[in-house]
Amino acid sequence: MNYCSNCGAAVRLHVPPGDNLPRYVCGACQTIHYQNPKIVVGCIPEWEGRILLCRRAIEPRYGLWTLPAGFMENEETTAQAALRETLEEANAKVAIGDLFALFNLPHISQVYLAFRGRLLDLDFSPGTESLEVELFDEAHIPWERLAFQTIRDTLRHYFADRRAGAYGFHFADILPASE
Amino acid sequence: MNYCSNCGAAVRLHVPPGDNLPRYVCGACQTIHYQNPKIVVGCIPEWEGRILLCRRAIEPRYGLWTLPAGFMENEETTAQAALRETLEEANAKVAIGDLFALFNLPHISQVYLAFRGRLLDLDFSPGTESLEVELFDEAHIPWERLAFQTIRDTLRHYFADRRAGAYGFHFADILPASE
Repeated sequence: MNYCSNCGAAVRLHVPPGDNLPRYVCGACQTIHYQNPKIVVGCIPEWEGRILLCRRAIEPRYGLWTLPAGFMENEETTAQAALRETLEEANAKVAIGDLFALFNLPHISQVYLAFRGRLLDLDFSPGTESLEVELFDEAHIPWERLAFQTIRDTLRHYFADRRAGAYGFHFADILPASE
Repeated sequence: MNYCSNCGAAVRLHVPPGDNLPRYVCGACQTIHYQNPKIVVGCIPEWEGRILLCRRAIEPRYGLWTLPAGFMENEETTAQAALRETLEEANAKVAIGDLFALFNLPHISQVYLAFRGRLLDLDFSPGTESLEVELFDEAHIPWERLAFQTIRDTLRHYFADRRAGAYGFHFADILPASE
């Protein structure tokens, strides 16, 4: 950040009076530009025990497999974000279920949420951000070609819970070394 | 948003190619300025059955009571945010427990999270954003003078769960009419 998005003057990074963290502050109109973590919301679309994964057509991790997930937009709920991302990335319609995981990723200032989802039909296809979309049973999940630690951990918990006979809610920090 | 925070040129609101929502896009350097929901994180600090509330010294809802809560900062976890807000607003030290609630507030593009907390000692006092801080048992919660619907709903669920003998995880949308 170099310029004030309000008035166009130069900003300076300093701790405003009464605050305790450096912020970008406009030297002209004095607007304080706060920067906050972003929310990534994903879905675990299931069809008769198999999970729908997308192979990424975009960076980062081009060509690797992921659950449908992306940045939450203004004026939507977390469940609406999960529904939208699943539609955008896999042209797939799901009934969104319970929140299944919340992972903190402080090193990249993100909070990742994953919802369970029930695929409504088999009419899915790659969205513009996907190379292919495919249903995998547990034995065939491409564990070595998953795009992110969040996806690996979500799927591990999911299959473990299924074996245990009850889906829980999973909360954890994912630190840089493990991503 | 009027100017590009990267280069200082004027921005224009339009749907970028391949996107489906209007974004502020710089006419000079072409930077797309995404805007995303913010996360508000709070804590339910408990001491021998009583809950620590703060009376707000800031707008909005100046003078009304709230749980310690505030905007999550970059490079922290949600639990660290709960700990920090409790320290800032009530000078109170807590052991952060399980995530207790997630409320979607799409009309203001916020996601609210509340953690259970165990107050570590009685050495608390108003922070700069609080007029007073006080422990309340259930019978004395100032229900009519609570600052936000999120706080009312969090406390209602908390006492209901306590009566039921088990704390759950609560997920809901809070819509404009109810705030």
